[in-house]
Amino acid sequence: MEIDVDTERLRADLEANGHIGEVEAEVGWGRTVLTATDADRQARDRFLDRLEAAGLTVRVDPVGNVAGRWVPESADPDAAPVAAGSHLDSVPEGGIFDGPLGAYGALEAVRAIRESPVEPVRPLEVVSWTEEEGVRFGTGLLGSSVASGVRPLEAALARTDGDGNTLGEELARIGYRGEATIDPASWAAWLELHVEQGTVLERAGVPVGVVTAIAGIANCDVTFEGEANHAGATPMDERRDALAAASEFVLDVERGARERVEAGHEAAVGTVGSLDVSPNANNVVPGRVEATTDQRDVDPEVLRELIDGAEASAERIAEERPVAVEFDHYRLTEPSRMADRCVAAAAGAAERAGLGRLEMHSAGLHDTANVANVTDTVLLFAPSEDGVSHNPREWTDWADCANATRVLAGAMADLAT
Amino acid sequence: MEIDVDTERLRADLEANGHIGEVEAEVGWGRTVLTATDADRQARDRFLDRLEAAGLTVRVDPVGNVAGRWVPESADPDAAPVAAGSHLDSVPEGGIFDGPLGAYGALEAVRAIRESPVEPVRPLEVVSWTEEEGVRFGTGLLGSSVASGVRPLEAALARTDGDGNTLGEELARIGYRGEATIDPASWAAWLELHVEQGTVLERAGVPVGVVTAIAGIANCDVTFEGEANHAGATPMDERRDALAAASEFVLDVERGARERVEAGHEAAVGTVGSLDVSPNANNVVPGRVEATTDQRDVDPEVLRELIDGAEASAERIAEERPVAVEFDHYRLTEPSRMADRCVAAAAGAAERAGLGRLEMHSAGLHDTANVANVTDTVLLFAPSEDGVSHNPREWTDWADCANATRVLAGAMADLAT
Repeated sequence: MEIDVDTERLRADLEANGHIGEVEAEVGWGRTVLTATDADRQARDRFLDRLEAAGLTVRVDPVGNVAGRWVPESADPDAAPVAAGSHLDSVPEGGIFDGPLGAYGALEAVRAIRESPVEPVRPLEVVSWTEEEGVRFGTGLLGSSVASGVRPLEAALARTDGDGNTLGEELARIGYRGEATIDPASWAAWLELHVEQGTVLERAGVPVGVVTAIAGIANCDVTFEGEANHAGATPMDERRDALAAASEFVLDVERGARERVEAGHEAAVGTVGSLDVSPNANNVVPGRVEATTDQRDVDPEVLRELIDGAEASAERIAEERPVAVEFDHYRLTEPSRMADRCVAAAAGAAERAGLGRLEMHSAGLHDTANVANVTDTVLLFAPSEDGVSHNPREWTDWADCANATRVLAGAMADLAT
Repeated sequence: MEIDVDTERLRADLEANGHIGEVEAEVGWGRTVLTATDADRQARDRFLDRLEAAGLTVRVDPVGNVAGRWVPESADPDAAPVAAGSHLDSVPEGGIFDGPLGAYGALEAVRAIRESPVEPVRPLEVVSWTEEEGVRFGTGLLGSSVASGVRPLEAALARTDGDGNTLGEELARIGYRGEATIDPASWAAWLELHVEQGTVLERAGVPVGVVTAIAGIANCDVTFEGEANHAGATPMDERRDALAAASEFVLDVERGARERVEAGHEAAVGTVGSLDVSPNANNVVPGRVEATTDQRDVDPEVLRELIDGAEASAERIAEERPVAVEFDHYRLTEPSRMADRCVAAAAGAAERAGLGRLEMHSAGLHDTANVANVTDTVLLFAPSEDGVSHNPREWTDWADCANATRVLAGAMADLAT
């Protein structure tokens, strides 16, 4: 059954939310809503108002995640709910869609289901996760990681911002350190709508992406330690040039990903995004270079090959050049598979709505990657104009927002009936 | 004839000078004497006092270079003088030998000649150049470049420090914007004693280096412009990674110099010393990289090959990768040959003093490179402990200071008789 969402109602919600934390932007519409700031409190307050106005019962958990619950008359209140949502926090000077589209889109989907003849047998929940961006407290997907049992509550609450304030203190300050339980493991399914933040849908001319897998991400810190020395007085055969060593590594990381792509693993990417050279003076042989890697793939084995390749490169360089190399795996998030039945529900909803869809992978992480550890999930994408995100120029047409929300609503209705 | 310098007198001068601008150092003896600061005024005042105490007549030119002149009774006052010296300014927290050894060494050499039976037929001059280090006013070898006609006086005086003060104003403020002429073209020869700032002498166990050529230096700014993009969402075949491009360049610059060394040009070096990556975030494909090159050789042709090789590498990379490359030759200082007769005078003086010597090249620039454009020159090196310089740990044994000064004095006496 097709669910008819209200484009203008959704737009009004997103625009009103977009004025909270709004910042001046030469082009586009920017907002800065860092976790547990006053702007975040306003955004949360308004979201809860809108949930309640739609007849949902709201609750807040100890890490500040919020959920609104609707138990249809047709439903068993004890049945496992179908939940959907995203996040309300932003990066500094971010756009108005990244996060809010999924939170307000889920609310609009529930409103639309409620206004439709559909008779869900499961409760529906609309959720907004705390600190998805990880800007203020240094780690993204924080609220969903606690709710999904990936990270202990205490560790999350003890995280500090640049001024030494803890997340726990700041949540209490804005009135969002709750006591309720939000437990994804108790859900029948989880759906998240998000802007793509890439150009796959735009280039394909397709309004909705149905994500089948979220790429895993490995980040490593790699330090090349040579010896800073006079660029003139140090003969070529006596130098311990940390930058020349690091340059080989950069090219090896690139080559490693290219080889996987050529072998058919199209999602494989490998990047050295940051490189800090010391002393970084034009007449001094670089003595130390700190580099970071970002390697991703949807297949755990391929991701492991990428990481091992980078480590082998570092070891080879340390053998062949007079530098010491430290290789620190500081983060590994395994790839997440979306559940076939959730993907099928989304595909069916798109078909019923007469909308083209593209099955694709997500290169970026989303809260859904945490939730997928404990229940069946699917992630939906709406097109991003020029792929721009984390920027006031981030934009998704209102018609695209509505169409993606139609698919979300249809899939939720399907999974809840 | 051997000239007997007074080790203790030289040491007292260098130590007294070392207390001017002295800074606390955990190890060693640090000083900060930036050009035309109050510390520089004190250092200059004391130097002039010592020149006058030794019977020299002092003068200051419009860019603040100072000279003391002694006309021996045996000399023709109109004969072309033999001059020697170095500089008194330092880098921030530099050592006490880099510069002062050559300035006070030249004074000690003149005092020693004066006390010896040598009867010079030429006047002797002791010189200290302004702003050798280039720290405060952004360009090194400044005073000698004006005196040697390499740079117009007005351009030098108009240079500004970080606060917008001009060199001209600051020289006037400290009382060192003179009106006299110091013209290296009028000299019969110029000699400079300097600390090696490298480990060649130390490793060879030789107390004096006689430099036969000063390497030329080419510096280029190279900018790689790609496109910053999401490290996850940008497939490998669509990225324009400026850092991967720059990494190829770094390795090509290194390879270029290594190949010249293998071909017998031992002095050839090539370094990318600084590399600035934008936006330098671990999850963003680098969009822009700015690199600098430092390439050196004593042979103008080899230096040209090194530069051309770097430029060809940049062009190849721009052809093979979707990046734009800008290559800016911003500085080229040609190699300088020392005059055979000056090298021979130094070699003879070392032999007469019973001191081992090493003929070598200088990888670093010195004021002598400017003076060599207009008269015959030689540069002498004293050993640097562990090659350390521009650091409070810079050290040269007092005996080594005195021995190198003996060679300087002997060579000056030879060239002046």
